Amino acid sequence: MDIIVLKPEATDTDIEHIIGKLKKKGLEAHVSRGTERTIIGVIGDTSRVSEDEENAIRAIEAVESVMRIIKPYKLASREFKKETTVINIRGNRIGSERIHVIAGPCAVESRKVVLEVAERVKSAGATFLRGGAFKPRTSPYSFQGLGEEGLKILAEARELTGLPVVTELMDPRDIDLVLQYADVIQIGARNMQNFRLLLEVGEADKPVLLKRGLSATIKEWLMAAEYIMSKGNHQVILCERGIRTFETATRNTLDLSAVPLLKQLTHLPVVVDPSHGVGKWDLVIPMARAAVAAGADGLLVEVHPNPEEALSDGEQSLKPDAFRQMMEEIKPIAKAVGRSV
Amino acid sequence: MDIIVLKPEATDTDIEHIIGKLKKKGLEAHVSRGTERTIIGVIGDTSRVSEDEENAIRAIEAVESVMRIIKPYKLASREFKKETTVINIRGNRIGSERIHVIAGPCAVESRKVVLEVAERVKSAGATFLRGGAFKPRTSPYSFQGLGEEGLKILAEARELTGLPVVTELMDPRDIDLVLQYADVIQIGARNMQNFRLLLEVGEADKPVLLKRGLSATIKEWLMAAEYIMSKGNHQVILCERGIRTFETATRNTLDLSAVPLLKQLTHLPVVVDPSHGVGKWDLVIPMARAAVAAGADGLLVEVHPNPEEALSDGEQSLKPDAFRQMMEEIKPIAKAVGRSV
Amino acid sequence: MDIIVLKPEATDTDIEHIIGKLKKKGLEAHVSRGTERTIIGVIGDTSRVSEDEENAIRAIEAVESVMRIIKPYKLASREFKKETTVINIRGNRIGSERIHVIAGPCAVESRKVVLEVAERVKSAGATFLRGGAFKPRTSPYSFQGLGEEGLKILAEARELTGLPVVTELMDPRDIDLVLQYADVIQIGARNMQNFRLLLEVGEADKPVLLKRGLSATIKEWLMAAEYIMSKGNHQVILCERGIRTFETATRNTLDLSAVPLLKQLTHLPVVVDPSHGVGKWDLVIPMARAAVAAGADGLLVEVHPNPEEALSDGEQSLKPDAFRQMMEEIKPIAKAVGRSV
Amino acid sequence: MDIIVLKPEATDTDIEHIIGKLKKKGLEAHVSRGTERTIIGVIGDTSRVSEDEENAIRAIEAVESVMRIIKPYKLASREFKKETTVINIRGNRIGSERIHVIAGPCAVESRKVVLEVAERVKSAGATFLRGGAFKPRTSPYSFQGLGEEGLKILAEARELTGLPVVTELMDPRDIDLVLQYADVIQIGARNMQNFRLLLEVGEADKPVLLKRGLSATIKEWLMAAEYIMSKGNHQVILCERGIRTFETATRNTLDLSAVPLLKQLTHLPVVVDPSHGVGKWDLVIPMARAAVAAGADGLLVEVHPNPEEALSDGEQSLKPDAFRQMMEEIKPIAKAVGRSV
Repeated sequence: MDIIVLKPEATDTDIEHIIGKLKKKGLEAHVSRGTERTIIGVIGDTSRVSEDEENAIRAIEAVESVMRIIKPYKLASREFKKETTVINIRGNRIGSERIHVIAGPCAVESRKVVLEVAERVKSAGATFLRGGAFKPRTSPYSFQGLGEEGLKILAEARELTGLPVVTELMDPRDIDLVLQYADVIQIGARNMQNFRLLLEVGEADKPVLLKRGLSATIKEWLMAAEYIMSKGNHQVILCERGIRTFETATRNTLDLSAVPLLKQLTHLPVVVDPSHGVGKWDLVIPMARAAVAAGADGLLVEVHPNPEEALSDGEQSLKPDAFRQMMEEIKPIAKAVGRSV
Repeated sequence: MDIIVLKPEATDTDIEHIIGKLKKKGLEAHVSRGTERTIIGVIGDTSRVSEDEENAIRAIEAVESVMRIIKPYKLASREFKKETTVINIRGNRIGSERIHVIAGPCAVESRKVVLEVAERVKSAGATFLRGGAFKPRTSPYSFQGLGEEGLKILAEARELTGLPVVTELMDPRDIDLVLQYADVIQIGARNMQNFRLLLEVGEADKPVLLKRGLSATIKEWLMAAEYIMSKGNHQVILCERGIRTFETATRNTLDLSAVPLLKQLTHLPVVVDPSHGVGKWDLVIPMARAAVAAGADGLLVEVHPNPEEALSDGEQSLKPDAFRQMMEEIKPIAKAVGRSV
Repeated sequence: MDIIVLKPEATDTDIEHIIGKLKKKGLEAHVSRGTERTIIGVIGDTSRVSEDEENAIRAIEAVESVMRIIKPYKLASREFKKETTVINIRGNRIGSERIHVIAGPCAVESRKVVLEVAERVKSAGATFLRGGAFKPRTSPYSFQGLGEEGLKILAEARELTGLPVVTELMDPRDIDLVLQYADVIQIGARNMQNFRLLLEVGEADKPVLLKRGLSATIKEWLMAAEYIMSKGNHQVILCERGIRTFETATRNTLDLSAVPLLKQLTHLPVVVDPSHGVGKWDLVIPMARAAVAAGADGLLVEVHPNPEEALSDGEQSLKPDAFRQMMEEIKPIAKAVGRSV
Repeated sequence: MDIIVLKPEATDTDIEHIIGKLKKKGLEAHVSRGTERTIIGVIGDTSRVSEDEENAIRAIEAVESVMRIIKPYKLASREFKKETTVINIRGNRIGSERIHVIAGPCAVESRKVVLEVAERVKSAGATFLRGGAFKPRTSPYSFQGLGEEGLKILAEARELTGLPVVTELMDPRDIDLVLQYADVIQIGARNMQNFRLLLEVGEADKPVLLKRGLSATIKEWLMAAEYIMSKGNHQVILCERGIRTFETATRNTLDLSAVPLLKQLTHLPVVVDPSHGVGKWDLVIPMARAAVAAGADGLLVEVHPNPEEALSDGEQSLKPDAFRQMMEEIKPIAKAVGRSV
């Protein structure tokens, strides 16, 4: 159901014109004449067609504004599915009582670094390994990732440690390659509205970790999830990673209120990436604690044995010892909110 | 110390001109000629004069940019004072190991509501009472507060419960009146850069709770604290209450990363207002937990016995029972971070 | 008229409860039951009471959202007054066919500078002199203005040149002083929601130039104008001066679309301050041209004979020769939009 | 050249450690010890390697911050190429004295609409035809474009009118198809940081119209241009289309100050899209005038014969008559800035 607000000068002919348009689309109109405005309530199934229709209605001169009542996403909504979705990846159930920690270097730089990090984070309690073989970098002159070689290193680390692998897909042409090695496909913040990529992973049978875009609203983020789900893949994990604001003291502003809000709006599990969210290693631990306290189902954390030598995001990576400390600090928080790590 | 970056086309005459200007101000110049740019390091005490000087230097045509190295605030900085400031208000020590919860209705609407809320929040564990007698409202047609009558009601509630009173000052002309009744003077978000008001409370001998402005950077917020401190009043409590972003699903975006960041930059205590931060009562409890987990020294929470009848901010007020639940939920979080409530 | 959207689980009892509440306030309810949501249209005069009522209604658990149909400002709206307001200041009519240029130094620093600038901008075609005697500075250690001495200098410049004076009021306690010297009282961006100051100038009989707040929406800005007008002073000039965004290459982001939008929403005249809007002198001229092309009724421009020595905002001040060039460049643009300078 | 600012507690060992790191990368260090901070100037060619290096240096505990002096883009910079780039497309020279107007429907919906619009905009003075065959839509349930059929319709319209075609590429897999029909490849706002797509069009020999991302800084936008140029394609046209801010009264905030700023920073031509910039058809004409006044090299405008029936963006499309009026209104503005339409 939508609400169409008419301008004060709208005439009866205008109203008839709009009602006629709605009828042609199989929608009913419900006119209320107030003292200052006339409004038209649109009744019928507006959920599938309305974005374009809405905009077309806004183009009518007699129309002041159009307000949407129904959420534009359906499959992703809590109304559509009441129970929280639990995604099972090699026995690790994201969305369950247990909080999962996905850790690893930003980029797969070398076999040595990845294997070392994998063992260290595993021993500290991480249940997933992350690492990028394809890296979206703002400069064409920066390290762009090792490609398939990187994926192989991740697979080797998985074999050694048993940790399932989360890795990013940037290009629809790489999907078969990535599916061959990854347990969870990550869609990065800059690709949250790369709709072709979303449709592609929507046809895959592996879970997708969907990062929030830098300036994406919660609604747009859920619409991106809807894109994936509309193709049949309902295994979507949402990952809050900070939004862009005027504040420059942190890399982004981590929007932790998104966590409890998403728990109301959607049945999908929600994890938080404090590393990108703040962009400074010495703020990661308190924000990891806060994310767990806010109700996150998991964390995504960058860990590097020697951040000073990292080829990507060194400034926000925890050293393995600090990561271990983080794991210790989130345990009692998890317990306080009735969960475990 | 500042860094002046020159344009590629800057000449030796330009450089001499700038050095001459700096010398007149008692500052020394340190010129480094790189392959692509020449930069001038400014040496000397730039902390007091530099905002205007910087801008004047930016006006020179040969100058590309001016970068500030030294923080523009001094008294508020952790460098100036290493130990965390603890503010003692009738025996309640904000900034100490104990987390203090400041609770009450948004506006003082009636004696009945305030006394009821005061008793309820006290029994649930709050240590301060909040309530506005002067209300900054975006509409001139909204309830503007009861004025002195409201202050008297707060004082009566303090007598009954022993809870010290936090209340807002909006107008420098009201300072004597507010000082007569308040234990802590609140400066609201919209007045964070009302510099005359800041100077006024800087001369008071009561603690000031300084809310972050809607679009204030951390640096500007600390400069506002510096205004107050520059007049001699060092009892400043910073209160994060959400910043304005493009997201409209919440009233503001609560920036919890400000908490650990401020702990690095300043010695002043930091509290969090989840009620304004999110603007929806059903998100307040998780964000209160997250704030404590992030390291906040206290919380500011709106409580109303009947939010449906509240004259201000009903949509973000907790009912007394929900407030009690919040207190229960933050206790184990506080313990997890080595603190108590 | 407002629209109340109920949650899917709302019961008939909930609906009755809400209707009862509305009736008590003299409002009627108009219930529409759609397939997915029930909505309640609120009929009656919601214009004066609704901000608080709306929030209180949002506090009801069965309510999903409340949407406002009627604009919350009235006196400032184009609906209330169809003809554009023209404000006559010593014969200069702001809002008329002629575009007025208000020019001068950021701060009144010295008699010499002000008199020189006044003569130079007058000879180039400016019709008003600007200059701050009270300066809102982000640092307590920056130049804070000359106070009454500054006002006297402005008055002297007016006598010499005939240019009416625009100057800022920061503190309600200074209003009599400022009214003694100023022709137009400026309310700065940081005071746009200093509601006490707004009420004070609302009782003055001099025009008010109201700058947009750093993160103020158009609606909030018009509500600030409404504050002033609600006290009887309808002589309000709106001044767009840039909003705060994530972009750091300019001081602010000048929102020129505000100009034609305001022309639709309000009858008040609109001027643009490109100096603060971009913060860089070498971008001021093109943005002044663009402002005129967008339909602005005037410009506010900072001019200083020697920006390198300015005590405030040197980096964004035009030298008198550049100002003269600006005046030349906006003339044909003004003509192209059917106006004159 | 970069500047490394050390924390006050940094020791000589820390300084030696950093100098050692820089030396290994072939960079020299220039240490300045101020009274409050020590800073290290990094000398050498930091332009190619520095993003990663910078971040790695930020990871060192003794480092407070790292400031970049040199711009991270090179090929796109005005320093690299002084003369403005003029891009010749079938005889239409974008970046020359003549302002080019690219007009057409948002989406290619039908042959009839496209041919009609093409003829109408051509006769009103447009020199390019725009229209999307592949549409990036926020909802998976919205019209997604006609694909190759749409491209064929555009080609037919070109044959009829002689107008070269600007159309969007969304997926690297479609590049050969799009190159077959398009004269200019558009990269949409949501793909501005789809780095794989940028590399792909960087290898094409057709001009690229690169829209600014919704929350992209000027620097990031120029880095996206650099991506394309780094592959050999130097024919990049930048298109400002509004950024995302807190303001909701317009769809985006059109940042016209980007135009003169880009003219300083880069040699690439700059066009403005007022349709997306404001999102309301009745604000398009004034913003088109303002864009020309600000110095834009061209405009991108949505035109539809019947916006009420448009399948996409009807609310921001001009009808052909309004488009003709726009063309009339920008002519004298163009002349005023020494250009023609």
